[in-house]
Amino acid sequence: MNILILSALSIILAFLPPSLAEVNKAYQDERNKILQEEEKLRLGYDVTLQGDEEKADQIFLRLKQKELQDGFENVEKNLPGMHYYKAKPLLDESKVYQLIRKMPKGALLNVHPPGAVTSKWILNNILNKDNLRKCTNENGVQLLTFRKKFDGCKSESVQVSKGEAKEDWFNLYTPTPEVTFKSSEAAFNQLCDMFDRIDDALNYLPMLKAHYRQFLEELYADKVLYTEVRVKFSEPYDDTSKKYSLDDVVKEIENVVNDFKKTHPDFIGLKIIFAILRHGKEDEIRKNFDLYKNLRSKFPNTIIGLDFVGWEDKGLALQPFADDFTSATRDGSKLFLHAGETNQLGSTDQNLVDALLLNTTRIGHGYALAKHPYLMRDVKEKDIAVELCPVSNQVNSFVEDLRNHPGAILMSENVPVVLGNDSPGFMDFDGLNPDYYYAIMSLTPYQAGLKTLKRLVENTIKYAQLTDQEKTQAETLLKAKWNEFIKEILKEGE
Amino acid sequence: MNILILSALSIILAFLPPSLAEVNKAYQDERNKILQEEEKLRLGYDVTLQGDEEKADQIFLRLKQKELQDGFENVEKNLPGMHYYKAKPLLDESKVYQLIRKMPKGALLNVHPPGAVTSKWILNNILNKDNLRKCTNENGVQLLTFRKKFDGCKSESVQVSKGEAKEDWFNLYTPTPEVTFKSSEAAFNQLCDMFDRIDDALNYLPMLKAHYRQFLEELYADKVLYTEVRVKFSEPYDDTSKKYSLDDVVKEIENVVNDFKKTHPDFIGLKIIFAILRHGKEDEIRKNFDLYKNLRSKFPNTIIGLDFVGWEDKGLALQPFADDFTSATRDGSKLFLHAGETNQLGSTDQNLVDALLLNTTRIGHGYALAKHPYLMRDVKEKDIAVELCPVSNQVNSFVEDLRNHPGAILMSENVPVVLGNDSPGFMDFDGLNPDYYYAIMSLTPYQAGLKTLKRLVENTIKYAQLTDQEKTQAETLLKAKWNEFIKEILKEGE
Repeated sequence: MNILILSALSIILAFLPPSLAEVNKAYQDERNKILQEEEKLRLGYDVTLQGDEEKADQIFLRLKQKELQDGFENVEKNLPGMHYYKAKPLLDESKVYQLIRKMPKGALLNVHPPGAVTSKWILNNILNKDNLRKCTNENGVQLLTFRKKFDGCKSESVQVSKGEAKEDWFNLYTPTPEVTFKSSEAAFNQLCDMFDRIDDALNYLPMLKAHYRQFLEELYADKVLYTEVRVKFSEPYDDTSKKYSLDDVVKEIENVVNDFKKTHPDFIGLKIIFAILRHGKEDEIRKNFDLYKNLRSKFPNTIIGLDFVGWEDKGLALQPFADDFTSATRDGSKLFLHAGETNQLGSTDQNLVDALLLNTTRIGHGYALAKHPYLMRDVKEKDIAVELCPVSNQVNSFVEDLRNHPGAILMSENVPVVLGNDSPGFMDFDGLNPDYYYAIMSLTPYQAGLKTLKRLVENTIKYAQLTDQEKTQAETLLKAKWNEFIKEILKEGE
Repeated sequence: MNILILSALSIILAFLPPSLAEVNKAYQDERNKILQEEEKLRLGYDVTLQGDEEKADQIFLRLKQKELQDGFENVEKNLPGMHYYKAKPLLDESKVYQLIRKMPKGALLNVHPPGAVTSKWILNNILNKDNLRKCTNENGVQLLTFRKKFDGCKSESVQVSKGEAKEDWFNLYTPTPEVTFKSSEAAFNQLCDMFDRIDDALNYLPMLKAHYRQFLEELYADKVLYTEVRVKFSEPYDDTSKKYSLDDVVKEIENVVNDFKKTHPDFIGLKIIFAILRHGKEDEIRKNFDLYKNLRSKFPNTIIGLDFVGWEDKGLALQPFADDFTSATRDGSKLFLHAGETNQLGSTDQNLVDALLLNTTRIGHGYALAKHPYLMRDVKEKDIAVELCPVSNQVNSFVEDLRNHPGAILMSENVPVVLGNDSPGFMDFDGLNPDYYYAIMSLTPYQAGLKTLKRLVENTIKYAQLTDQEKTQAETLLKAKWNEFIKEILKEGE
C-alpha cells in the first residue's frame, strides 16, 4: 500500500463517526477505570483474599447486596438507614448481622468499662444487693454506693429497695429515639448521669472484681481477643475500714485478667489508658497528671498512656494541658486522646489540632475529622488510628442516619480506622456487632465486602499497644479465628 | 569567647529544659500555623475584604458567634442544629437571618419552576379558578387541569370546589418533620405527587404566564438577579382548540421575562435547562433528546443545555444515555446534570462518574460527592460547580442535622459550590434565605463570615451561563447591591 492510499484512508477514518458500540466501549472502559481509581483509595482495597476467602466474599456480598436492595425497595426493611434502636428488633433476622456476630473482632480499643457491661448483669448483680444504698448528689443526680457514709451524697442515703423499677437506670434504649434524644444534650445528660450513678458502687472492691470479670466474659463472647480500656481511677473500698490506693485498682484488675486468662488461654489481655475526666477545675484536673506518673512508673506494662474523657463539648479543652501531656509522656508512654467528638466546627473540634500536636497515638472518635482535610491528611501520613464509634455517635444524636456518618469519608480515603463501641452496656448494644454491621452496610459502598471487614479487624491489632510477642500471638489467634469465620460463611452458600 | 567555652555552653543549653512559657509559645505558634493551613483550604479564604467590609465582617461574626453560643448553651435555641421546619418559627428572631434576608443572592442556578412559587400564591391564583378540574391518574395521584378532557385522567374529572381544604396540596411544611418524613420516601412521594398534580394546570397558557411572572416577582424579592431553570416541556393549551408546540412555551417564557425586565431593569434574565424526567421507559426518554436538539437550534440563547430530573434513586441512570448526551451537546450546548442526590453508596451515586465523563458544566446536588474523594478532586480541578441544596436535602430526609451535610466537606476543600433551593415553593422556604443561613451557620466554622458569604454569592455569577456582556452587567449590579448590604450590616453595629 503506498503512502497516498494510507493518507486517504486516514482522512476517511477521521470523518467516520465511531459506531455507537465503539463509543460505548471507550466510555465504559474509561468509566471502569475511574471507578477502579476511586476504589484504590478505599480502606481494605489492598487486602488480598485467597481461596476460600474469595468464595466467602461472593456469598457475603450476595447477602449484603440483597439486604441493601430489600431496604431500598421497602423502607420498613432499610436497617442500614435506621437508628440502631429502631433496627434492633429486626437485626436478628438479618443474615449479614448473623454473620457479623460470628466474626472475630480482634481488639476493642475504645471502651469505658463502667458503661461496658450489660445493664441486665448490673440489674441482677449490683442493683439487687442488700447493702446497696442510694442518695442524690449536689446536682440532684441519683448515686449508688456500698458505703454507709459517702461524701458524694448531698441527701441522706437510703437502702435501694427490691421492688424499685431499675431497668432503665443503666440503659439508654428507647423504641423512640427520635423523641427521647432530640439533641446530643438529651442523650449525654442521661449517659453522664449513669457514669456518675455507678461510679462509687464500682469502687466497692467485690463489685470492682465481679464487674471486670463480667466485662471480660462479655468481651470474650463478643469474640474480642484483647482490649485497651479507659479507666477513671478512684480509691476503692470494702466493708473494712482499710485504706486502698489507686495501685490496688491496677492490682485487682491485673488479678482478674490473669484469672480469666487461665480459663481462657486464647484471650490476650487488657491494658489501661489512664482516663482523666475533663470536667471540673483546671488545677484539680492537673493533679491527675501526677497520679498518672506515679501509677505508670509502678505498672509500666499495664498502664500504657493517658486520655481526657467525658462530654467533650462541655468539658475542658486539651490545649491548656499541652505541657502536662508532654511532661507526662516523657517516660515513653502514649496518648490516646479523645478529640472531635462533636458537631461543632471551629471550637470543640480544635481538640483535633492539639491531639495531633501532642503526637497522640490514636484519636478517640474523631467525628469532626472529615471536616478538617489538612488534619485528616496528617492523620493518614502519621498512621494514627481513628477509633470510630458510629453507633455511640448515633445514640448521642450527633447523626441520625449512619449513612451520613463521617467515617464513610475517612474510609473512602483509607484513613486508618478501628471500630470501638464506647459504652456498649449503657447503650444496650450487642457488643461490637452493631458497629461492624453499620460500618459494612451504611458507611461503605455496595461493593465492599470481606476485604473491608478483614482490614477493620486487622487494624485493631495493628494499632493496639502490644509487645512484639503479644502481637504475634494476637495475629496467629486472629488468623485461626478468621478462617473459622470464613467456614461459617461458606455454610451460608451451601 | 573561645571554642571550648562555646562547646560547654551548648552542652549546658541542650540539657536545660525549656521554660513552660517557651514550650507554650512554640506550641501556640505551631497550633496557629496548623489552623491557618487548614483555613487556607476553605471556600472563601482568598477573598479580600476591604474598608467597610472588614468592619461589617466583625459585626456579622459577633452576631453569628453569639447565636452559635446561645444555641450551644440552650438546645431550644440551637437553630443551626434544628430541622428547618422546626427552626422556621424562630428564624425571624435571628439577627443573622435578618441580615441574610437583606443580602443580594446573585443567581439561582438550581430550581424547578413548578415547585418554586409559594403555595399561598398557587392557592390564591390557581386553586380558586372556576374552570379548574381534578381527577386521579393511573397511580391514584390527584391531578389538576384546566382542560375539559385530559388524557392523564383515569378517573372522571370534576370541578375543584371552593370549600375544599387545599392548603397542603402544594406545601410540604409540617411542624413535626421527624414524624411526617421518617424516610426520603415519605417526602419524595409527596413532592413527586405535587409536581404531577400541578403539571397540566401549568400547561394552561394563562397560568403558565402568570406563574412565571410570579416566579420572577418572588426571585426579585429574594434579591436574585438571574436564574437558570430546569424546565420539563409539554405542549401548552388554552380555551381554544388551537394546537401549541414546545416552541410556544419558550416564546411565552421569553415574553414574560422581557416584560419583567422592562419594569425591573436590574434583573438580568432567565435561561432554560431542558429537563428530561428520568422516570419511564428508556426509549420514551430517548425521544426527548430530539425534542431538545430541535428546541435548542431555534432558541440557542435561551436554551442553554440539558439535564435529567426527578427522584434520582428511583429513576434511570445517566449511563445508558451517555451517547445521547454526547450527541445532544455537539452543538456546543452544555450539561447540568443532577448527580449523587442520594444516600446510597456504590449504586445511584455512580451517576457522578457519568456526569464527569460527560463533561457536565455543573453538578446538581452532588450530595454523595464527598464520599468520592477521587471524583471530588476531579470536580475541583475541572472547576465544576456543585449546586448544593442543603435545606431541600434535609426536607427530603437525606440528613437530619445540617451540621452533617456533606457540603461542609466540599467547602472545607474549596470545591466550587453554589447554593440552590430546588423546590422552594413546595418546600415552604423563604427564598434562598434558609440555604444561606444554614450554609454560614451549620456548614462552615465558627470563624467563617462575610468572606464565605461573598464567595458563595459571587460563585453564582461565575458559574452561570452568561455572555461576557451579561456577566459584566451582573458583576456590576452585584457589587452595588453587596455594598448596600455592607451598609445594612454596619447599621447593626451602631
